Amino acid sequence: MEKTKVGIVGMGTVGTGVARLLLDHGDRTARHAGRTLWLEHVIVRDVAKPRDVDLPAGLLSNDLDRLLADQQVTLVAQLVGGIEPARTIMLRLLESGKDVVTANKALLAEHGPELFDRARELGRSISFEASVAGGIPIVANISQCFGANQITSIRGILNGTSNFIITKMDQGLGDYTSALKDAQRLGFAEADPTMDVDGTDVAQKLAILSHLAFGVRQHWSEIPRRGIDSVSKLDVDYARQLGYRIKLIAYSEFTGDGLQMFVSPTLVRVGTPLAEVRDNFNAISVVGDAVGRVFYHGQGAGQMPTASAVVADMIDTAVGRARITFQTLKLWSKQESTIAMADPRKLRSGYYLRFQLIDKPGALGQVCTILGNHNISVSDVIQHKADLVDDQNIVPVVVMTHPTTEAQTAAAVEELNRLAIVHPATERLKVLD
Amino acid sequence: MEKTKVGIVGMGTVGTGVARLLLDHGDRTARHAGRTLWLEHVIVRDVAKPRDVDLPAGLLSNDLDRLLADQQVTLVAQLVGGIEPARTIMLRLLESGKDVVTANKALLAEHGPELFDRARELGRSISFEASVAGGIPIVANISQCFGANQITSIRGILNGTSNFIITKMDQGLGDYTSALKDAQRLGFAEADPTMDVDGTDVAQKLAILSHLAFGVRQHWSEIPRRGIDSVSKLDVDYARQLGYRIKLIAYSEFTGDGLQMFVSPTLVRVGTPLAEVRDNFNAISVVGDAVGRVFYHGQGAGQMPTASAVVADMIDTAVGRARITFQTLKLWSKQESTIAMADPRKLRSGYYLRFQLIDKPGALGQVCTILGNHNISVSDVIQHKADLVDDQNIVPVVVMTHPTTEAQTAAAVEELNRLAIVHPATERLKVLD
Repeated sequence: MEKTKVGIVGMGTVGTGVARLLLDHGDRTARHAGRTLWLEHVIVRDVAKPRDVDLPAGLLSNDLDRLLADQQVTLVAQLVGGIEPARTIMLRLLESGKDVVTANKALLAEHGPELFDRARELGRSISFEASVAGGIPIVANISQCFGANQITSIRGILNGTSNFIITKMDQGLGDYTSALKDAQRLGFAEADPTMDVDGTDVAQKLAILSHLAFGVRQHWSEIPRRGIDSVSKLDVDYARQLGYRIKLIAYSEFTGDGLQMFVSPTLVRVGTPLAEVRDNFNAISVVGDAVGRVFYHGQGAGQMPTASAVVADMIDTAVGRARITFQTLKLWSKQESTIAMADPRKLRSGYYLRFQLIDKPGALGQVCTILGNHNISVSDVIQHKADLVDDQNIVPVVVMTHPTTEAQTAAAVEELNRLAIVHPATERLKVLD
Repeated sequence: MEKTKVGIVGMGTVGTGVARLLLDHGDRTARHAGRTLWLEHVIVRDVAKPRDVDLPAGLLSNDLDRLLADQQVTLVAQLVGGIEPARTIMLRLLESGKDVVTANKALLAEHGPELFDRARELGRSISFEASVAGGIPIVANISQCFGANQITSIRGILNGTSNFIITKMDQGLGDYTSALKDAQRLGFAEADPTMDVDGTDVAQKLAILSHLAFGVRQHWSEIPRRGIDSVSKLDVDYARQLGYRIKLIAYSEFTGDGLQMFVSPTLVRVGTPLAEVRDNFNAISVVGDAVGRVFYHGQGAGQMPTASAVVADMIDTAVGRARITFQTLKLWSKQESTIAMADPRKLRSGYYLRFQLIDKPGALGQVCTILGNHNISVSDVIQHKADLVDDQNIVPVVVMTHPTTEAQTAAAVEELNRLAIVHPATERLKVLD
């Protein structure tokens, strides 16, 4: 059988998984690629470090140049994380005539245009299925399977760490801090979880998916975003009482005014597919105007799901499909038409508002009057008895609104926060149907 | 922009949808194919029939030879249903040098090997995403995205008509006959729904998916199958009391003994993804040993979801990806290794058993003793008060078993049916976790 010689740069968790699939399950890749993907080089920083995979002698090296110089290797899985030296390695791989497969979403979200332009100039391809929701083949699905559609909506749960934490909070197993500790203990959160819990990771993934689906070139840092790290157990519990769960939602919606995007903790109704996504799972709901709504649920990350996506891309590259897709789609190219971003203040949805009111007669009436003045119609109210906070009787009041706009709720909340009866810490979250 | 001239044969519901996408939304296919898919021929039986799409003058013809003779057209959507003349048309298209895209699962399930061999000999490709669960790109996902995996399980709800009917029965909106009439009135069931409700359609789809996933060459007619048409409202209601829904499940599972396959009404636990699939939707749960479980939910059929799948295949063919996939996978080829089928009697699952017992003291004890003698362990029992049936007091007794085998339950039920206290019409259904 024909051989395609391949390399791996970076032997962290994912690289180890990829090596295992290539070394132990060559029959599978042979069936799907019609040739063996023959692992020829594994480049790491520290060759002395113990590895969880038995590598045949001579594979392991810390000499990237050895791989770059090997003209027989035209396909490399570049699995070094972060921006540098990942970016430089990627460019050098492309420049030495290699097609690249990567799982590095941060690098693509930051330097996608540069890397893709360079790959095009050099006639190489970059594949990146593993960069978003590794266990769900969403990149292939959006790039290829829905080509006849105007995609109108993407809604996803794209960060397993955040979803694990919020699931534990919803199940009454602790507040944010203790749930995060559980996640770290179980290996679902990194020692420094900042990028996972503050929405950065999700914004980077959403930027990639939205570029694929809509052609939009929104830098991830320009997407309105908020992470799960600011969500209070109190709001998780109120949401549940109202029949909702709070999830960290990535949202891109094609409206008459352009594209609305955000990453934010959001209320989703219990029983709807996104609300039922538990623990460290990911899910994505895509709507196309021909295909309708298609919902995906699977492992978002983890060693073998991500390695599965990397190897699928390696097969795609080895057989020649990846190059066709790459050349046809012209991702992050200068030529591509862009779609306008909508004004985020015009984003329309239901809202969850929580006020801490000082317990005085007429307080709730004042709140409702101001909401009414801002044309905000209320669908549900919860008020419980007062708690003593800072020597004052504080009544938590939760209001669910009918669909209204970001601008209207922002203005109403700003006015409410100026009232003497409103104690600080008003919460405001969007609600999805 | 470069043009790829294409043709359509057959202008039923799906053909009309495909024509609309090609004629009205050429910009989309241009973006994803890097060229225009230019509709050059539409071949129908009756050119006088009114159409739901405005076709430019000169496109419509009843002369297949005109299309066959046009050497500039190398890509045709063959959307004639049934076996003949669809098979002959397909062969003639391939022989005249055209790549074919089709939605015709019955034709592939019946004549896949012949058609695929012929296409390979001729250097052409056949694409068939639209043949299974049109709105869910499951063919591309299994063929391409999970190439690094041993797929271990496929479970699906693959027939929208059946799922619509069973959903209505579960919601208390009628029995099988009235739910079927509703489905027909709403356009979710054909005038002759036999193939949809008796499991034929699902078995054909399962045969295709199982071939893709496992390489198995099981003819659809050899898959143990039972349709939704034999399900009684009584069992739907008992299942619900026990926390389950009855769904028409397509099942392929890779076990130590080989592949287990069936199509059957099956109990699935409320709250699990397959149980929550409503109305005419389809869903598929795929497990790969690297990727884990991936769940898909979407429109199974309908004009535009199916047309979306057809056009995605046309794009894939126009850019050259389809030919690579077709040549690499060697589907239904003589060379391909096959996987052994497991003995269906060894299939292991929980079972739902319903007996109609003649109301005599000790009747339930006799039933449980016989089950125990067959090593069948009971998890739940429901017995309600007796009804008068055929002048006898009949007690319906429902037993849920712990996992056991098809052979054990069959033997136990056979013995039980011989008892004088067991009234005919014992029901036996599998239960999925």
